[in-house]
Amino acid sequence: MSKPSIAIIGGGPAGCALLKSFEAANKLSEYDITVFEKQEKLGGLWNFDWHTGIDQNGEVVHGSMYKYLWSNGPKECLEFSDFTMEQHFGKKLPSYPPRPVMEEYLRARYETEENMKRFRFETVVRYVNFEEDTQKFKVVSHDLKTRTDKVEHYDYVAVATGHYNRPSMPHYPGFESFQGRLIHAHDFKDGSQYKDKVVMTIGSSYSAEDIASQCAKYGASKLLLCAREKAADCAWYHYNWPEEKFEMKPILTHIEGKTVHFKDGTSEVVDAIIVCTGYRHYYPFMEESLRLQSPDLLYPGNLYKNVFWENNPKCMYIGAFHQWFTYPMFEAQSWYARDVILGRIALPDAEGMKKDSKVWMDKESNLPSEESTIDFQSEHIQMYVDATDYELNVPVCQKNFHDFVANKKVDIMKFRDLSHIDPTDGKPSPAPTNGTWMDRLDDTTKTFLENC
Amino acid sequence: MSKPSIAIIGGGPAGCALLKSFEAANKLSEYDITVFEKQEKLGGLWNFDWHTGIDQNGEVVHGSMYKYLWSNGPKECLEFSDFTMEQHFGKKLPSYPPRPVMEEYLRARYETEENMKRFRFETVVRYVNFEEDTQKFKVVSHDLKTRTDKVEHYDYVAVATGHYNRPSMPHYPGFESFQGRLIHAHDFKDGSQYKDKVVMTIGSSYSAEDIASQCAKYGASKLLLCAREKAADCAWYHYNWPEEKFEMKPILTHIEGKTVHFKDGTSEVVDAIIVCTGYRHYYPFMEESLRLQSPDLLYPGNLYKNVFWENNPKCMYIGAFHQWFTYPMFEAQSWYARDVILGRIALPDAEGMKKDSKVWMDKESNLPSEESTIDFQSEHIQMYVDATDYELNVPVCQKNFHDFVANKKVDIMKFRDLSHIDPTDGKPSPAPTNGTWMDRLDDTTKTFLENC
Repeated sequence: MSKPSIAIIGGGPAGCALLKSFEAANKLSEYDITVFEKQEKLGGLWNFDWHTGIDQNGEVVHGSMYKYLWSNGPKECLEFSDFTMEQHFGKKLPSYPPRPVMEEYLRARYETEENMKRFRFETVVRYVNFEEDTQKFKVVSHDLKTRTDKVEHYDYVAVATGHYNRPSMPHYPGFESFQGRLIHAHDFKDGSQYKDKVVMTIGSSYSAEDIASQCAKYGASKLLLCAREKAADCAWYHYNWPEEKFEMKPILTHIEGKTVHFKDGTSEVVDAIIVCTGYRHYYPFMEESLRLQSPDLLYPGNLYKNVFWENNPKCMYIGAFHQWFTYPMFEAQSWYARDVILGRIALPDAEGMKKDSKVWMDKESNLPSEESTIDFQSEHIQMYVDATDYELNVPVCQKNFHDFVANKKVDIMKFRDLSHIDPTDGKPSPAPTNGTWMDRLDDTTKTFLENC
Repeated sequence: MSKPSIAIIGGGPAGCALLKSFEAANKLSEYDITVFEKQEKLGGLWNFDWHTGIDQNGEVVHGSMYKYLWSNGPKECLEFSDFTMEQHFGKKLPSYPPRPVMEEYLRARYETEENMKRFRFETVVRYVNFEEDTQKFKVVSHDLKTRTDKVEHYDYVAVATGHYNRPSMPHYPGFESFQGRLIHAHDFKDGSQYKDKVVMTIGSSYSAEDIASQCAKYGASKLLLCAREKAADCAWYHYNWPEEKFEMKPILTHIEGKTVHFKDGTSEVVDAIIVCTGYRHYYPFMEESLRLQSPDLLYPGNLYKNVFWENNPKCMYIGAFHQWFTYPMFEAQSWYARDVILGRIALPDAEGMKKDSKVWMDKESNLPSEESTIDFQSEHIQMYVDATDYELNVPVCQKNFHDFVANKKVDIMKFRDLSHIDPTDGKPSPAPTNGTWMDRLDDTTKTFLENC
């Protein structure tokens, strides 16, 4: 009898986590696992791609990564407890590493010889449907290198393509004739392209605050932040911004040429508009009955334990939730998924699954504050940790996330200069020794490691 | 017995042409025809979309249209002989109308009540395969409005999505760290965004010459044209460019910051790079055995009469060729396809089809000049005209194309101020009365019609 087969769609942190879960249990050889990855290497959005729109193979550019991105959450909340950054880099690191450090750490974790045998790079999944007669998932994939297709059948399918890659783009009157540069955050590549420019961001969340900060850091002359949401609901409204460069505006009403008119009657001439209005769950390759369609929520629904597609639990989604926890959450979910596949954990019946999901979803719909969403997700990840042999010090991560939010409220430009608690010894990580984040224009691994 | 069914994928000029061919033969009621169109309205790339990259529905922006585009070929070569622009607009028009005029003309031709009943707008085809057991094409489509899928079966499928929508993008060293604006021609929207900027185009063909001209017209300070091809093989190398704004360069070797280094050792600081290196045939929704994969050729191969997929001729491609003739060519092809479907024209056997295609393909591979490609395609379209009741004065179009190329060689900035022969009366069309193309910044239909 052939081995049970698993198709993992996407070789970013989430897809790698599921593969790793089988390696960690020494079960890789008992399953026929294939990871389909559109890009040339693993890493998902941590791969920087200079293309905008369409890539070298004619496919949609996946990642929303930009140059000079530094972790926008504490590294203590995304380290693996059995493989810390200290173990990999040989020294304790400050709390906010730049992208190349994050990428190297991810590769060191997942680019093992055994794992790499399971990858099909530059291979896109075009269509997945469940066949009643074979009781398997039919997966149609396309090899971009040879321009040929494969049709195969799998016992399990795990969707791990992420959901911060397909832009959600609003329209404001005048967008169609704006005489400056208009892009979605997805296509933002390099703050230095906006040197001496007046830049406006639209949007209330992480992308807006980080892209505005990036542009300021690399020389933009003025930053205007606005959002559709009322001020109190904008994350950045609660942060402390340096007044000489940043201005918070109400939402725009319309644009004439390069002049943006705001709801309070004021107007500004802007060179560039960067629309930071987020992304959408987008899985066109899944047949409708298997396709997650949801806003970006902590607990989107139809997924038992936020992983198992309730109507067909051999279809799984890894990482399909609004995120505080990232790398370890993908692994914790994967450990749970693996244990279900291995038969170590039993799934309830359909009604039981829906009932369990409803408890979480009801809870999410009543969360009163940004801080309470941290507590919700801490409880959520703890559930996987309790049910499996995955190790993570959740309470320390939870405290670090709270401190991180508090630090941004004190000074948004300086939160990356501060330190969080290292779960391995309970002490704060070292501070960087080469100035503030605003001064540290060089984001190479070498420079970062030399200054901590 | 149910009617024979036809799925037309794409509601641009090519898809509309096939629908029209059934209307013209009074056969619409005898077939069950569905046109799947991703956009909100018919017109294909003639619809201007302000989005870049991803559209409001999360789908890839189809069109490569930009504002202020004027026809870059004589309108006398793309008019329908039974419905001229004079008939629609009530007066004779100059030879190069702006986009809104072209769009209105197209809508007047195709937006009939009967035709519109066959359209499914905002509906994307996700996957098509031929089923041996039913001998039908299974078409999976997705309605973007309701976010639901349909799986249906059709007797015929016609691919009419065009092949100037999926960019082909090269890499040059320094692209990944260019500190200006780097886009593919697909994402060029508005020349006025490049006012006072130094703009470089890369590429040897129409997009490069027209986008450079556009930028100059709307105020760019300097235009640099370069291409990988040797000078003699660049269309624009043979044209006469005003020296005060335009400079022809050899291909670049690399970029540092905003400084572009060229193969001859010279360098220039540029604000924007617009990569005009063309598009690719891209039909990911067709199963491999039905998928055209080819460079952009006059006669790509595997298609009998450049229409019928030789391995399964109930699968057709309309407009999948490098183009001189456009609108009437799509109709001529469609008339031929329709007559095959109606049984008025018989297809040869597989060997006969391949033999016929080989004659055309061999001929294309020996064409000595740009001018000879006009003659090739004139012979090609004449073949459809001879075989069907489609009416077109091919020799006049052929002459007009030759004159058009000659005019560009004399002065690339002025060819749109000249007139071509109107096939209806053999006389030159009127010249515009409101100055040169360079002066005519207003591209509205009203202004255009008032000045001819």
